[in-house]
Amino acid sequence: MNVKKNELRVVTIEKDYLIHPEGSVLITAGSTKVICNASVEEKVPPFMRGEGKGWISAEYAMLPRATGTRNIRESSKGKVSGRTMEIQRLIGRALRAVVDLDALGERTIWLDCDVIQADGGTRTASITGAFVAMCLAIYRLHLEKPFETFPIKDYLAAISVGILEDETAVLDLNYVEDSSANVDMNLIMTGAGQFVELQGTGEEATFSEEELVELLSLGKAGIKQLVELQKTQLGDEITSLIEGE
Amino acid sequence: MNVKKNELRVVTIEKDYLIHPEGSVLITAGSTKVICNASVEEKVPPFMRGEGKGWISAEYAMLPRATGTRNIRESSKGKVSGRTMEIQRLIGRALRAVVDLDALGERTIWLDCDVIQADGGTRTASITGAFVAMCLAIYRLHLEKPFETFPIKDYLAAISVGILEDETAVLDLNYVEDSSANVDMNLIMTGAGQFVELQGTGEEATFSEEELVELLSLGKAGIKQLVELQKTQLGDEITSLIEGE
Amino acid sequence: MNVKKNELRVVTIEKDYLIHPEGSVLITAGSTKVICNASVEEKVPPFMRGEGKGWISAEYAMLPRATGTRNIRESSKGKVSGRTMEIQRLIGRALRAVVDLDALGERTIWLDCDVIQADGGTRTASITGAFVAMCLAIYRLHLEKPFETFPIKDYLAAISVGILEDETAVLDLNYVEDSSANVDMNLIMTGAGQFVELQGTGEEATFSEEELVELLSLGKAGIKQLVELQKTQLGDEITSLIEGE
Amino acid sequence: MNVKKNELRVVTIEKDYLIHPEGSVLITAGSTKVICNASVEEKVPPFMRGEGKGWISAEYAMLPRATGTRNIRESSKGKVSGRTMEIQRLIGRALRAVVDLDALGERTIWLDCDVIQADGGTRTASITGAFVAMCLAIYRLHLEKPFETFPIKDYLAAISVGILEDETAVLDLNYVEDSSANVDMNLIMTGAGQFVELQGTGEEATFSEEELVELLSLGKAGIKQLVELQKTQLGDEITSLIEGE
Amino acid sequence: MNVKKNELRVVTIEKDYLIHPEGSVLITAGSTKVICNASVEEKVPPFMRGEGKGWISAEYAMLPRATGTRNIRESSKGKVSGRTMEIQRLIGRALRAVVDLDALGERTIWLDCDVIQADGGTRTASITGAFVAMCLAIYRLHLEKPFETFPIKDYLAAISVGILEDETAVLDLNYVEDSSANVDMNLIMTGAGQFVELQGTGEEATFSEEELVELLSLGKAGIKQLVELQKTQLGDEITSLIEGE
Amino acid sequence: MNVKKNELRVVTIEKDYLIHPEGSVLITAGSTKVICNASVEEKVPPFMRGEGKGWISAEYAMLPRATGTRNIRESSKGKVSGRTMEIQRLIGRALRAVVDLDALGERTIWLDCDVIQADGGTRTASITGAFVAMCLAIYRLHLEKPFETFPIKDYLAAISVGILEDETAVLDLNYVEDSSANVDMNLIMTGAGQFVELQGTGEEATFSEEELVELLSLGKAGIKQLVELQKTQLGDEITSLIEGE
Repeated sequence: MNVKKNELRVVTIEKDYLIHPEGSVLITAGSTKVICNASVEEKVPPFMRGEGKGWISAEYAMLPRATGTRNIRESSKGKVSGRTMEIQRLIGRALRAVVDLDALGERTIWLDCDVIQADGGTRTASITGAFVAMCLAIYRLHLEKPFETFPIKDYLAAISVGILEDETAVLDLNYVEDSSANVDMNLIMTGAGQFVELQGTGEEATFSEEELVELLSLGKAGIKQLVELQKTQLGDEITSLIEGE
Repeated sequence: MNVKKNELRVVTIEKDYLIHPEGSVLITAGSTKVICNASVEEKVPPFMRGEGKGWISAEYAMLPRATGTRNIRESSKGKVSGRTMEIQRLIGRALRAVVDLDALGERTIWLDCDVIQADGGTRTASITGAFVAMCLAIYRLHLEKPFETFPIKDYLAAISVGILEDETAVLDLNYVEDSSANVDMNLIMTGAGQFVELQGTGEEATFSEEELVELLSLGKAGIKQLVELQKTQLGDEITSLIEGE
Repeated sequence: MNVKKNELRVVTIEKDYLIHPEGSVLITAGSTKVICNASVEEKVPPFMRGEGKGWISAEYAMLPRATGTRNIRESSKGKVSGRTMEIQRLIGRALRAVVDLDALGERTIWLDCDVIQADGGTRTASITGAFVAMCLAIYRLHLEKPFETFPIKDYLAAISVGILEDETAVLDLNYVEDSSANVDMNLIMTGAGQFVELQGTGEEATFSEEELVELLSLGKAGIKQLVELQKTQLGDEITSLIEGE
Repeated sequence: MNVKKNELRVVTIEKDYLIHPEGSVLITAGSTKVICNASVEEKVPPFMRGEGKGWISAEYAMLPRATGTRNIRESSKGKVSGRTMEIQRLIGRALRAVVDLDALGERTIWLDCDVIQADGGTRTASITGAFVAMCLAIYRLHLEKPFETFPIKDYLAAISVGILEDETAVLDLNYVEDSSANVDMNLIMTGAGQFVELQGTGEEATFSEEELVELLSLGKAGIKQLVELQKTQLGDEITSLIEGE
Repeated sequence: MNVKKNELRVVTIEKDYLIHPEGSVLITAGSTKVICNASVEEKVPPFMRGEGKGWISAEYAMLPRATGTRNIRESSKGKVSGRTMEIQRLIGRALRAVVDLDALGERTIWLDCDVIQADGGTRTASITGAFVAMCLAIYRLHLEKPFETFPIKDYLAAISVGILEDETAVLDLNYVEDSSANVDMNLIMTGAGQFVELQGTGEEATFSEEELVELLSLGKAGIKQLVELQKTQLGDEITSLIEGE
Repeated sequence: MNVKKNELRVVTIEKDYLIHPEGSVLITAGSTKVICNASVEEKVPPFMRGEGKGWISAEYAMLPRATGTRNIRESSKGKVSGRTMEIQRLIGRALRAVVDLDALGERTIWLDCDVIQADGGTRTASITGAFVAMCLAIYRLHLEKPFETFPIKDYLAAISVGILEDETAVLDLNYVEDSSANVDMNLIMTGAGQFVELQGTGEEATFSEEELVELLSLGKAGIKQLVELQKTQLGDEITSLIEGE
């Protein structure tokens, strides 16, 4: 296995992108662009009421023309695809792993990740951007009324790695690479280097333990860079709160 | 009736906003921001096949957090609201009024208007922006293979006018004005000053013929400015084609 | 522009058409036949509860064979079409313009407009008939327990006007005229001659300000006749209450 | 078991009730009123194509205010209830029993039964009325191009019988009787006295073989009267064709 | 009419088939296999709350490959077919006929009948099996807290009878016989020999009163055998409670 | 981290469980029971037609009472949950990794995995069982007309591993263990020890690289046992074909 590409595409995170949401971010990774909005709702889903615990929920969608050919809107089809459901469940689950839901209190943070332009890695960009939007929204709550314990416990970022048809291992795949990859893996990790989610899939192919080790190593390096970018964007006040200083 | 405000809010039109669509525009009007994407599909709806005639179809949606409080996605609800249907039917119908569908040939132009930030006037901004996106897409077709007759016959823009509770007539209402207006009117007009659509509604209120005349006068002035902006953005080559020079 | 037809088709309003509804009317306009039923429900939609204010809501449907060829039922398709939604929103909004919702008290009047035979003008006939059905239902409430202020403030009727392909302006279009009209306009007005709603649409065509003036003039004459018919059908007791004598 | 009521309610059948359908009937039975429309469609469902055989399909619905309290429309609910499905399957199946589908040729007759006022027995009135509407539509086809074999082989009518809480057997139950009946039976029979469908149901109750015999006897007498009425309404030409003279 | 087959296929009832349900049965009839599970829910549908009365509700489904060719899942289609609704309404209604809902108290017994292999008679097997599952669940409630009156008043079983194309009357039709039968009748009866439901249908055919008598006689004999099997399976303790000894 | 449990629960695979499917298996793992049926359909999805390549598709469902409390059927809810979609996409994707779709030819193998009793590990049992059902169906095709290349290239099995709250690593979690686990990982591997899919998820928790290594080691041992069981059940003829001898 060769390693052709071990660098991230150009990533930018623009804070306060829209005016209405409690937290709003435009994240770009290469040509992929995702608007990540965080909304605070002062209640939790029915099955959690009265427990004093918070919840993080995510939704994901693409504009019909985020892609090279136009997709039919899921609202027109009247149902959400399996792919969309899988991604939005993943985003919510990942964010909850770095949040102290008891400290958050009985409220829901909604993360809406809307892909306006897609070129591979939309789910990982959504997670990396949604984390920042969530920090902004929770920090706003903190300014209104300080939390005893700041609910965000660590940073969270996600990246894809894969093995192309020519056996090359690649970090941060774009659409063309992703479409032809034999193995596709998404890594979600914390600032402390812990795994939150690991999803490796052979696409009509399989992978060995050696390849797994190689992919994890590539991915960890990418995550580290993303977390650095998040810290820069969040600024000192918020990073101090997360790092519990 | 007083006239408090006879000026448009700041309007900008950014061409080629996204890379994939055949025509792509970001239009802003005050705090309202709409992405208008035009896609070319080389077929028409089943009921029109074989007639050699084209079709223009539009879809409209808002991001959940385009507004002050979060709205549930229509894809999650599994159905499109009456308001959304009304707006997307309106956009398509209005655009078709300035297109020679025979000249277009048997293909569909899809216009996707996605509101990423809302502050009143989203449907009129969608129409004004979608017109530009449509021009870009049809011009691209023209470059590939020139039309005998350029299918776009005139400019098209839309604006809202209204009467506030204090009887003031207002051009280009923002959300706060719109919410409290007694009368709300949407005007869609061509560059030549012809009406394409006129929708005036009393909101638990009514209006007189004098008020109608006043509103039309305000609206026409606004349309004129929008058409000028469209011309500037489209540039000489496309305006020459539209004006048939 | 010529004026070929400035007379309404034959219009009849049959009161108490069905036995169950609180108000029931069969309205015919030429070959168009609509059953308009008013039902009183002693509660309001969730977003209005506890405000002491009433609500008027409308639904519209066609029998599958109201038209020349059979339409698939919307219940079989599992969703209501954009056209239906647009019409039922219009009917409800128009009726609310002549009702004092505070005086009505915390209850909903449902208006069901079911077209059993269609020949153009089904939405305007629905509004003209639904107004009468609503009066009957509210009058019945008044007989049970008199309102301090009778909630209906004025008459309400609707008519269509249009411009045919040969540039003739026409009042009260039937299906054949409507299908081929260049411009189609629906006018909803009160007994006092105020506008409630004005919807003018160029069908792949546009219209000038002169044409607009002509259409409004035709329409106002038609509305006047419809309001006279409503008064006759409602009878002295109800008209006195509406006119506040 | 006593027999309190062995007479039908007043039944009327008005032919050619609406102008568009190929066959149209308004049937009333007591206060129950059903519009039965027959439409001819020159194709059959996909699973039958190319066999040269016809099909009979039925749909059934109630206006929201056909009943004492308003029902939510099935189109608004987005799905058809189990009761509606059961009834429309029953109507189609029953009609097919007296039609020679081979003789009909590869076309579908749609029967739309729309209850505009309900007072018990809506499904049986629908069948009795739909039979007449179907005869009118098929006769119209016959006039255009005579069938070698007229496709309708016999008359078809339906009636309900039941046992009330006081053990009285009753023919043609109205809504009040039906609601409180212990046993409810629908009989669908041909002019020749053959059974097409027999559905007897104990409502939280059961019935004996003696009771069954009594109910069948009451029902058969009712069917006979309905078939006589159908013959009168259909007239000599159509009855001759059905009776194969 | 000849009687070719007056014997049931081999029927077995396996109690406590699954571990979670309050009552669970696997019933086989020839090659037909149905899992019948009874669940106790300590509430009733909204329209019955506060009356102290119980409810019995049933659902019916087939595995996609219960049949010779694969059927699309109803969950994938997003709606339940008319046939499924008809059957589940029938099962619930039939079971309620032998239950004293007042004695049951304000709770619902859900009966889930899932056909894992189909060879005709799935609805009748479902009823016969669901009765046993319901007895087991109600008996379990009785053991926890004895009922003053045991809510089950009698046995309940169901069987099909039919007339084949060659005029032979047949008991307990398998799929091949059922598909080609001219007349298909389902009988649901109590242990005391009372009718609960009788549904006879001519499939593009009709039947005479003599044929009806013959079919009822065949069916009653089949029901008797099924009730004997139910008694054996339920055992002395439960049968004593049902028989009120 | 301690290793408390490194043994599989009792696993059984019953071949030819139902008579209709081309391949049918009942797999049990502890108290979990899943019916896995394979159906052959002689066509592929629209997007693949004409390429001569086959497809493997899977559906997954639970009986309402497979679990301790009753779940509402997805067909009644009218939509498939996100969890169900995620699982059925996973099953199909995993199976495709060991199938040579070109060798299979233009047909679809449908795998229906219906959980009749659930106690943790339903998705992994579904995959392990579905592989056997698929082998049976493809072998039947082979007997009818031998493949040049037998399309199944390797064995495929799946197992779950996890880390409990007390930091114990566990193989093959039951429901109680699964509900309280901090980390939950599903491993899908081939007979040759290659990974097909690896999904590790921290449930409001994270995991380190050491823990990952430990979990993989536990899982691989479990997969090995499952593959041995599959070989025994499939028998010599099929294993020879898979192993290409």
